[in-house]
Amino acid sequence: MKSHTATLEFLVPSRVGFVHITPLVEAELRKSGIREGLCLVNALHITASVFINDDEQGLLEDYRRWLEGLAPHDPDRWQHNRTGEDNADAHLKRQVMGREVVVAVTEGRLHFGTWERIFYGEFDGRRRKRVLVKIIGE
Amino acid sequence: MKSHTATLEFLVPSRVGFVHITPLVEAELRKSGIREGLCLVNALHITASVFINDDEQGLLEDYRRWLEGLAPHDPDRWQHNRTGEDNADAHLKRQVMGREVVVAVTEGRLHFGTWERIFYGEFDGRRRKRVLVKIIGE
Amino acid sequence: MKSHTATLEFLVPSRVGFVHITPLVEAELRKSGIREGLCLVNALHITASVFINDDEQGLLEDYRRWLEGLAPHDPDRWQHNRTGEDNADAHLKRQVMGREVVVAVTEGRLHFGTWERIFYGEFDGRRRKRVLVKIIGE
Repeated sequence: MKSHTATLEFLVPSRVGFVHITPLVEAELRKSGIREGLCLVNALHITASVFINDDEQGLLEDYRRWLEGLAPHDPDRWQHNRTGEDNADAHLKRQVMGREVVVAVTEGRLHFGTWERIFYGEFDGRRRKRVLVKIIGE
Repeated sequence: MKSHTATLEFLVPSRVGFVHITPLVEAELRKSGIREGLCLVNALHITASVFINDDEQGLLEDYRRWLEGLAPHDPDRWQHNRTGEDNADAHLKRQVMGREVVVAVTEGRLHFGTWERIFYGEFDGRRRKRVLVKIIGE
Repeated sequence: MKSHTATLEFLVPSRVGFVHITPLVEAELRKSGIREGLCLVNALHITASVFINDDEQGLLEDYRRWLEGLAPHDPDRWQHNRTGEDNADAHLKRQVMGREVVVAVTEGRLHFGTWERIFYGEFDGRRRKRVLVKIIGE
C-alpha cells in the first residue's frame, strides 16, 4: 500500500468564501503515483468545509445566503461567542456543508461524475488556513 | 491491496425520491472478495445524495417535507436558477443529506448497526443518474 | 495492509448530549500499530452522529439549541412518530451533523488541525449505543 500526504494553504480575504480546489487535489494525486484507492480531502480547521458541488457562481452565492439564513453571523446570538469569539455561526455552517470528502481513485484519476468539483468553503476567513489531502492505495 | 469499482444506475420518476440500495452494495462487496477494508458509496451527481438511515416510509416522507422547508423548490428564489436551471434547491438539499458514505468492511460484510440502511436520495429526478461503489482492502 | 476494528459504547443519560471521544480513538490507533492510513469513526445507530468540531461547552450548547430549531422534538409533528416512535427529530438532527468522520493517519497519529476533536453526538439517548472505529493502512 502506498500513501501520499499534502497540505494546501488558503487565505480567503472575506469572512465567507469558496475556492475551487479540484486542480490542486489532482496535482497531488499525480505526485502520489496511486492508481486505485481513496483520496480524503478535509479542512484542518473547524470553521471551514471541504465539499463537492457545482462550479457555478450563482449557486455559490445561493450557498452563502442560505447558510446565513440557517446560522446567522450574529455575535450576540450564540453561547460560544461569550468566550470572546464571534465565529459560532462558522462552526454551525461548516456542519451543514461537511468537513471532508472521500473520492475514489480509479485508473490514476479522481473518479468523478461530469459536474463534480471540490471546493474549500471558508466561514471565518481573513487568516491563513489549511486543507489536508491524504491518498492511500496502490 | 485489492480494489473493486462499480456503478449503479437509477431513474427516479419524480423530482424527489429515496431508493433503498443496501442489497446492491452488498452484492458488489461479495463480487469484490474483500474481507477487511472500506467501502465508499457516493452519488456521481451534485443534486443527489447517498446517506444511511432507517428504511421506514414515514421517516422518508419526513425527510422530503423537512428538506422542502429548509431549501424550497422555488424557481425564482435562487441565483443558480438564473442560468436556466430550476434545480438550485436540489444542490442545497443534497448538502444537508451528504454526498457519500464510508462503511467499514469486516469479515466480508458491511459492518452495520441493526437499523443502518444505505439510501440513494434524489432531489432532481426524472433522468438517469449514477452511484459509485468503490471498495478497497484485502 | 493492516486493519483494526473496535466498538466503543456510550450511555448518554439525557435525550441529547455530546461526548468528546478523541482519546478513545487515539487509544485504538495505538493498538492498531498503523502508521499511515485512514481511520473511519461512525455511529452504529441512525439517531446519533460522529462529528469533528471544538471542545467548547458554549458551542455544544449552541449546537443543541440550533438543531432543536431546525428539527424540533415534537412527537406530533412527524410521520415517523406514527409508528409508535417519538424520535423522528433525532433521525433528522443526525443528518445535519453527519454519521461518520474519516481521519487521516500520518506517522502513527490522527492527522488533525490544532482544534479538531472527535465527538459522539446523541439525539435519542438514555440507552446504550455504539460507535465503530475502523482503521486501515500499514
